[in-house]
Amino acid sequence: MPADLRTAGKPEESQSAVPERVLDRLAGNRSRYLKELMEFLGIPSVSQDPLYAPEVRKAADWALTRVERLGFSGKLFETPGFPIVYAERCPYKTGPTLLVYGHYDVQPPGPLQAWKTPPFAPTVRDGAVYARGAMDDKGQMLTYLDAIDAILAAEGSLPLNVKLIFEGEEEMGSQNFDRFVQERRDMLRADLIALSDSTKFSPGLPAIRYGYRGLINMQIEVTGPAFSVHSGMFGGFLRNPVTALARILCHLKDEDSGRITIPGFYYQVRDAEAWERQEVAALPFDSDALRRYLGVDSLAPEKGYSALESMCFRPTLDVGGIWGGYEGEGLKTIIPSRAGAKVSIRLVPDQKVDVIGPLVRDYLRSLALPGVQVKITRFYGNDPLLLPTDSQAMEAAKRAIEYGFGRRPALIRMGGTVGAVTALHRQLGIEDILMLGWGNPEDGAHAPDEHFYLEDFSRGAKTVAALLYGLRVPRA
Amino acid sequence: MPADLRTAGKPEESQSAVPERVLDRLAGNRSRYLKELMEFLGIPSVSQDPLYAPEVRKAADWALTRVERLGFSGKLFETPGFPIVYAERCPYKTGPTLLVYGHYDVQPPGPLQAWKTPPFAPTVRDGAVYARGAMDDKGQMLTYLDAIDAILAAEGSLPLNVKLIFEGEEEMGSQNFDRFVQERRDMLRADLIALSDSTKFSPGLPAIRYGYRGLINMQIEVTGPAFSVHSGMFGGFLRNPVTALARILCHLKDEDSGRITIPGFYYQVRDAEAWERQEVAALPFDSDALRRYLGVDSLAPEKGYSALESMCFRPTLDVGGIWGGYEGEGLKTIIPSRAGAKVSIRLVPDQKVDVIGPLVRDYLRSLALPGVQVKITRFYGNDPLLLPTDSQAMEAAKRAIEYGFGRRPALIRMGGTVGAVTALHRQLGIEDILMLGWGNPEDGAHAPDEHFYLEDFSRGAKTVAALLYGLRVPRA
Repeated sequence: MPADLRTAGKPEESQSAVPERVLDRLAGNRSRYLKELMEFLGIPSVSQDPLYAPEVRKAADWALTRVERLGFSGKLFETPGFPIVYAERCPYKTGPTLLVYGHYDVQPPGPLQAWKTPPFAPTVRDGAVYARGAMDDKGQMLTYLDAIDAILAAEGSLPLNVKLIFEGEEEMGSQNFDRFVQERRDMLRADLIALSDSTKFSPGLPAIRYGYRGLINMQIEVTGPAFSVHSGMFGGFLRNPVTALARILCHLKDEDSGRITIPGFYYQVRDAEAWERQEVAALPFDSDALRRYLGVDSLAPEKGYSALESMCFRPTLDVGGIWGGYEGEGLKTIIPSRAGAKVSIRLVPDQKVDVIGPLVRDYLRSLALPGVQVKITRFYGNDPLLLPTDSQAMEAAKRAIEYGFGRRPALIRMGGTVGAVTALHRQLGIEDILMLGWGNPEDGAHAPDEHFYLEDFSRGAKTVAALLYGLRVPRA
Repeated sequence: MPADLRTAGKPEESQSAVPERVLDRLAGNRSRYLKELMEFLGIPSVSQDPLYAPEVRKAADWALTRVERLGFSGKLFETPGFPIVYAERCPYKTGPTLLVYGHYDVQPPGPLQAWKTPPFAPTVRDGAVYARGAMDDKGQMLTYLDAIDAILAAEGSLPLNVKLIFEGEEEMGSQNFDRFVQERRDMLRADLIALSDSTKFSPGLPAIRYGYRGLINMQIEVTGPAFSVHSGMFGGFLRNPVTALARILCHLKDEDSGRITIPGFYYQVRDAEAWERQEVAALPFDSDALRRYLGVDSLAPEKGYSALESMCFRPTLDVGGIWGGYEGEGLKTIIPSRAGAKVSIRLVPDQKVDVIGPLVRDYLRSLALPGVQVKITRFYGNDPLLLPTDSQAMEAAKRAIEYGFGRRPALIRMGGTVGAVTALHRQLGIEDILMLGWGNPEDGAHAPDEHFYLEDFSRGAKTVAALLYGLRVPRA
């Protein structure tokens, strides 16, 4: 926290009120803001797929142009991957500086036939815009620019210094971001950070996320014979890479208890505080509705924990993809040459990638079977994070959300990971990080038919405006 | 065995000698026979893939035309799947009738990039013809037609009655064949059966197969959420279909011992006879060479058995394909909506599909986990077979092979399955079934770069000619 904000005492109620003229602008510009969002969503900036690389750069250019039109001085910073869009408007010598983070890249769209309308042909229906990235993160990111746009148009100046940083590799793990932040510490210096790359708790209940799970992403590849062979001729004395892989996956997690079976895995897991468990227990959680939404007969939380406790407080392991051998029509009696799987392990405080990563590698090595080669061909890790919840910045965020969404937000940890926040936290030493979400868990981030309600799009911008006014300190 | 063959006593040495004029024809027509083979191989008759259906029919037409040119009266018999080519030339009222079986369909070619030359552009190099089906079974099947062609051209008549039956669904499990044979028992009546849809034991050692393993082919599909979802948001309390599938596969087979862990699975397994174990133990088996060929660091036979014993005498379980979730570039942190696997279980005498199938189903049901649906979406079964080895027909086959390949064949069971033989055995009540192979185990059946040595192609035809003369009985 900056000294001047810490000593400012409880901000006046009026501080978080947004000037009428700003609200008028937000309302009056609604259709333009939507048009801009649809334009942004039309760019298929899928960072994970090399085929889309030119489109990812196009999205970076689009974002730069947009912030420059706001009167910010902006620039594209090249990285070994996709560029980082940075812009600032810092006219004040005193008062806090807010750093806003967002990302302009999107997840791969997945099976196209599962989408009602094409993922990169944004479509408005039933009060929401449908497209890959609608919420995650293009739509939520633009609420910050829209709020700034309306404030500048109405008032000519912002209530505090604002820096904007938008990256293009969030969906591939923000692997160049940490380095960039480290090298540009001075440029990025700020007092607090705000971002909206999470969701409300539920459509009716906004949320502030004060921590999140970490992530280890690995690709495991198992190689057997140099080519696939007839399972009649060779079956019974040749190790099958698929069954060998299944055995490995089976030894990583106990499906009955939901516990990860890598030796030593839980040593660093810190129990949740009493208030956290109470907050989670008090949340309105309709597990029947969730089951229906997901189309499953039951949820399967870790033994001894509720579904929400599992998501907030417990590590987990999932396989996001598996492949090997013949996947076509009909039956093919072969022993495949190779098989592979994409494994994600979610970590919780105080687990560290540097500790768990080697545990996993050693354990995989101990599972090796004669007749196949087992290799980790990709590895990426990000530590979990836990932030203080009693700061003035947090209070300002709560008030802003109450103003924008009409309801006091829940305080809840996030199940997913924001690698970029880990980098900002570590490299800039900022503890006041406001992770605010305008969309809903059911809006389909990373899934087909991703969407973002126009109501949330507007309320988000209004909340950002309230936050900016709420964070300012009186100036002489 | 037909009575007249049984009572004929030991055939004269001269009976298995092939007339010089026939040998001359075989040698003289070599290039035409090769040209015909390449033409046949150029038809991509992949029965398992609906896209290739017209090509499969084209191969049936090709085979019919070929046998009609031999002077056989032939016909295409429609089935619910691909047609059966049947033809006969039965001028004799006495003496045995031989039924020759073959199949004109081929396995899917698999990964095209693994082939040196395209699978359906037959190419001769290093003394072999390379194409999908080169050996399995187009090349071996044509040796019968070439022998008949040469005999008829040289002598004007065959030494015994011959019926030919070629199907187009062998690579998809011969599912319409049993019914067809049952309905055409009279037409197909014969005294013995010959086919070449297996291999020699090794390049230098021909083999007669007197039995084979049965097969249960299943497709297991596991369904989780209605769509793939973010593993951060939902990971930890939503069952993952991939890890659920891995658990199922892991519970079907113990990778350490190689034993199948389905309760009751081994009850019907009959131990091999002493002479069988001795025959197998005496076979020249170079496991180092096999390891090098397959590119693996070690073989992994069932605990307590050698590699060859595993293949001949022991049941096994393999997964020929697995899929689920994201298989593309990069990492995708999702819980997939579904996953599936193609599982093959090889049975040995006296295991029966009707017994083991329900065991597997019940066991899968007992492995069901809340939160996912597990279904067997395809199921196909074929019983194992064990034939008598002391018949006169078997002796004739041994002599013919010694004549054609210059070496006494080994007697050995087959690891793979010939469903059509099960049907012929059961429906026609024929015990004298000669399963003779001209190609090598390393020739790539069901694998990339399948090939068939021209030397084996010629020797095979010569052996067939010797067999036909060896099976005849003296006529008045």
